[in-house]
Amino acid sequence: MKVKTGRQTRDYRTVSFDTGRNCVQLIDQTLLPHQFKRVECENYRETAKAIKTMIVRGAGAIGATAAYGFAQGLRSKRFVNLYSFENHVEKVFNTLAHARPTAVDPINAMLHIRSRMNRAGSISDKQDTALHEAESFAEQQIAECKSIGVHGRPLIRNGARILTHCNAGWLAFVDVGTATAPLYAAQAQGVEFKVYCDETRPRSQGATLTAWELHQQGIDHCIIADNAAGHLMQRGEIDLVIVGSDRTLGRTGEVANKIGTYTKAVLAREHRIPFYVAIPFSTLDWELESGMEIPIEERGMDEVLCAEGMGSAKERVKIRVANPGSPARNPSFDVTPASFITGIITPAGIFKPGELRKNRKRLSPSM
Amino acid sequence: MKVKTGRQTRDYRTVSFDTGRNCVQLIDQTLLPHQFKRVECENYRETAKAIKTMIVRGAGAIGATAAYGFAQGLRSKRFVNLYSFENHVEKVFNTLAHARPTAVDPINAMLHIRSRMNRAGSISDKQDTALHEAESFAEQQIAECKSIGVHGRPLIRNGARILTHCNAGWLAFVDVGTATAPLYAAQAQGVEFKVYCDETRPRSQGATLTAWELHQQGIDHCIIADNAAGHLMQRGEIDLVIVGSDRTLGRTGEVANKIGTYTKAVLAREHRIPFYVAIPFSTLDWELESGMEIPIEERGMDEVLCAEGMGSAKERVKIRVANPGSPARNPSFDVTPASFITGIITPAGIFKPGELRKNRKRLSPSM
Repeated sequence: MKVKTGRQTRDYRTVSFDTGRNCVQLIDQTLLPHQFKRVECENYRETAKAIKTMIVRGAGAIGATAAYGFAQGLRSKRFVNLYSFENHVEKVFNTLAHARPTAVDPINAMLHIRSRMNRAGSISDKQDTALHEAESFAEQQIAECKSIGVHGRPLIRNGARILTHCNAGWLAFVDVGTATAPLYAAQAQGVEFKVYCDETRPRSQGATLTAWELHQQGIDHCIIADNAAGHLMQRGEIDLVIVGSDRTLGRTGEVANKIGTYTKAVLAREHRIPFYVAIPFSTLDWELESGMEIPIEERGMDEVLCAEGMGSAKERVKIRVANPGSPARNPSFDVTPASFITGIITPAGIFKPGELRKNRKRLSPSM
Repeated sequence: MKVKTGRQTRDYRTVSFDTGRNCVQLIDQTLLPHQFKRVECENYRETAKAIKTMIVRGAGAIGATAAYGFAQGLRSKRFVNLYSFENHVEKVFNTLAHARPTAVDPINAMLHIRSRMNRAGSISDKQDTALHEAESFAEQQIAECKSIGVHGRPLIRNGARILTHCNAGWLAFVDVGTATAPLYAAQAQGVEFKVYCDETRPRSQGATLTAWELHQQGIDHCIIADNAAGHLMQRGEIDLVIVGSDRTLGRTGEVANKIGTYTKAVLAREHRIPFYVAIPFSTLDWELESGMEIPIEERGMDEVLCAEGMGSAKERVKIRVANPGSPARNPSFDVTPASFITGIITPAGIFKPGELRKNRKRLSPSM
């Protein structure tokens, strides 16, 4: 998507790969929204480190980064025999898999590449296959996001005021994003609308990343405290809610997403405002039978007790907001039951949450 | 209430008056929770400035501060005749009234004192009356808060987990507070319970002031992001909600309070959790016929775009959290309809919101 740097506006992807220089290129998300900087990872160890230090974050984006990093690692040198190559494959796989141990996307992406590599004979064929599969992983993700945009686009009426939560934008994927895809599609067709970005405490991804994205794309938007959405809905100032999903239960239609998503869903139903969830196929979980089985990660207290941002000297600063001595609880995700969800926007169309199950085939692409 | 300073624990009021030295004493709330410091206002101009700069905040607290400041100003010198005294009365009144132009409590408190002064004959009688009435204003407020505690106390069962929003604690009043009064009463009787403090963005009064208060009183508590309450309710971890009120409509039972209050009320009803509002008599408005008539103050964007707290060098720092270039909206209050409110805890007992009207007499104390 578009980024303004100085006077120029250029197109960037969150994650890309320079084949000639065997180099993974990322937007450094730890510096956003205060500074736009791209990072080049020159070997797979650097790529793993970028995942670990959250230079790149978001399920889709780290999946693609691991895929590229895997191909990068396998292409990094010449091998005397298949045995030494396979040893190296194992090492690269483990390094990238351990960068974010609880994330499933990097592992799924690399397992897929590895299974395709088995069909190739020579080491060099395997290396080419890895690169090819990493490229198609990224391309397929972009295609999925664009399809979400196509299906979600008609939801954005002229003059619509849309609430979004956290960041399920292009920074969380290779490009385009999920919750933002219908917005970008509508903008391309000249639809006029306004987006309210929930701040999304404690990590403030709405006020930082989503607001940055929308600002770069020139979309009319405005940040609100997480406390304000209910009031705006009550006064008739929100027409539609679109959020992303970290895990979507195919059997029940329940959605696990950033903490606060459930609250917005309850508010939306109370005010009869449509509540949509945009998902790529990869977040669908066909195993779990209830959202109560989803483990809710409780992160460190510091995120709640402190805030991070830019100080007066343009340096990054972390401050303690809360009373020293008071503890905090920090559940990072919540689960929204199907009954609160108007529709789930997928690359294969919009489904009611209860319809996912019988459409499993359409929702399980042969990658 | 109790404050630990070093090894000592002492009782303080938010606002007090030293008659001998004609001096208004305040806790500097701009420094809390990071530093506890008391401020002495040696003349009425300093007292007005303390109101203006929010060294003292909270409807009840600034009402009492203005009452004391009024008496302080009238006692500050000798007057040659009634004419010059009345001129001075006018000047002191206006100075204190203009310190926070939109606040009604300082004006109501001073008007009451002035009406009582009319019954006194000599200048010195008027000065004595002003002091006496300021003292009784403060004492009556404390008595009201204590009565709220007595009536609200049975709501706090052993083991209860209570959610509160913003700060309607003793720092917002002369002492004891409203939403916190039932908690302090329960603690005094040995009831065990836990309080979840909503952070309350954008000004974070829950994470700073309420958490500080509860910490000082030794009440088990924990800060959560405003996004987390819905999840905790869904998982059965909240038994009761108690909040304060900035304005309560006697005719309809609607409650205007800090932004986010309405959201918690919607969540509480969804989960069948009792939702109580604690109010002193002074917040009751018997004129307005609908909550939609209440003007909702939209404050500056900066509160949403930035955060304030303590930096690593123990200095107060303001940082920009949000994307530079993105605007914000900052509605500061919201209105909770009567249908979401289980009960209103007043100094005269607990009423259903619809019962306020027919109990107007009991709810209108002769001050």
